[in-house]
Amino acid sequence: MKFTKMHGLGNDYIYVDAISQKIENPNEISKFVSDRHFGIGSDGLVLILPSDVADFKMRMFNSDGSEAEMCGNAIRCVGKFVYDKKMTDKSTITIETLAGIKVLEMTIENGKVVLVKVDMGEPILKAEEIPVLSEKHPVIDEEITAKDYCYNFTCVSMGNPHAITYIENVDEFPLEKIGPLFEIHEKFPRKTNVEFVELIDKNTVKMRVWERGAGETLACGTGACAVLTASVLKGYVGRKATVKLLGGDLTIEWNEFDKHIYMTGPATTVFEGEIDI
Amino acid sequence: MKFTKMHGLGNDYIYVDAISQKIENPNEISKFVSDRHFGIGSDGLVLILPSDVADFKMRMFNSDGSEAEMCGNAIRCVGKFVYDKKMTDKSTITIETLAGIKVLEMTIENGKVVLVKVDMGEPILKAEEIPVLSEKHPVIDEEITAKDYCYNFTCVSMGNPHAITYIENVDEFPLEKIGPLFEIHEKFPRKTNVEFVELIDKNTVKMRVWERGAGETLACGTGACAVLTASVLKGYVGRKATVKLLGGDLTIEWNEFDKHIYMTGPATTVFEGEIDI
Repeated sequence: MKFTKMHGLGNDYIYVDAISQKIENPNEISKFVSDRHFGIGSDGLVLILPSDVADFKMRMFNSDGSEAEMCGNAIRCVGKFVYDKKMTDKSTITIETLAGIKVLEMTIENGKVVLVKVDMGEPILKAEEIPVLSEKHPVIDEEITAKDYCYNFTCVSMGNPHAITYIENVDEFPLEKIGPLFEIHEKFPRKTNVEFVELIDKNTVKMRVWERGAGETLACGTGACAVLTASVLKGYVGRKATVKLLGGDLTIEWNEFDKHIYMTGPATTVFEGEIDI
Repeated sequence: MKFTKMHGLGNDYIYVDAISQKIENPNEISKFVSDRHFGIGSDGLVLILPSDVADFKMRMFNSDGSEAEMCGNAIRCVGKFVYDKKMTDKSTITIETLAGIKVLEMTIENGKVVLVKVDMGEPILKAEEIPVLSEKHPVIDEEITAKDYCYNFTCVSMGNPHAITYIENVDEFPLEKIGPLFEIHEKFPRKTNVEFVELIDKNTVKMRVWERGAGETLACGTGACAVLTASVLKGYVGRKATVKLLGGDLTIEWNEFDKHIYMTGPATTVFEGEIDI
């Protein structure tokens, strides 16, 4: 099986052209290739497939073999994969995912993709759709207490729930200790991703994310989108800002006209490989 | 740079033919390729080089870029690398390392190496050479207390210090909590690797290892050799036994005639790759 290891801000997957290669039981393959010591080592597996409704179809599998809907970091790499490997010559393409069809606009330099802009759709602000137990609409500064920690959370969904709060000095924050307390708080019927954010200036915020079921990760695309949305609702930043994550920076825009969130960020090819499956 | 990812019981490195490829600043390359998210992902980098005094020379670098002397798991993979890639047709070869010249005997099946036997030399039993502060010779059941934990340690060096103690139910043992206490105990002037061992039967022991400067690892070749030595000194096993580690099994023999320790174990090729450096 030929593959390419790529990452989006350190969120790394194994990408496989499943158009020219027949891939059976991707769940098992994902478990094997993801193993950091016995396999290739990655956060999971991404298959690029033909599509009847878009330019390509993307299926992605976590390191435990379960299938995932979509991931902002991964879909940018899919765009770079198909363009750099000349599977398309269009710089704007559509990708079919379990979270619907996504539109990608790619910035090309010297024939290679350097940045990818992804339409992440409208943020969901209704409490019952996020979901979070709150009377507010939108859910701004909902006070939530867990053990002896109390924070005001602004809650947003990008197809998955996010709870965002603002603190000083995010680098020093004890995320491993506090993140899990709010991840599973009863206010969140389907648990939640938890983002702790430090305001840098009117155009820049810095975040760390405790991901639902994964703990701290280097980068979470939907988390960055949710953080921008919350920061606009709070009046902290303009509609377009840089979100700084452990793995690097994303530019997020909440478009005033179509109300969609646009995420722009890098996609990096690390190496090409071949493995016996 | 063409490379091969291989592992010995889950101790995985990036192996590079540095005879046909010119590799400059391996320290920096090791840091980059070892990164689990932004690089290939490994415990470090191993270069295979020409030698004036042996069949081949091996240099190995940790994930922090520092150069390491030798590693039992890695040297088995070096043997498989040079044989499977037809850089030699001999099944017994010598490898020059910073820990001296090592002799490898390889078991071949269908033209590929499946097992490698490595002469690891004589175990060092003198307290001042291990080093450990003890009046005993050999150092058997040296009682050492750290905080409120007290164990009898048998101490051996295989070129690096090991402190071995015997417990029940090694799987449930809180290694992360107790290992570090003895790793840096003042009894060990150069700190030590710490092995906790459960006796299975006269031919089998099961171990977990807290490695000096690395914490728990899946497998430590010198640790397995030290554990066999200590277990023979304690009269627990015969001179040849299976040592079960998290990453798999090794067969270790303390040869009665030449007093050398022989370690036999697998070496696994995971995949071939190419990366821009």
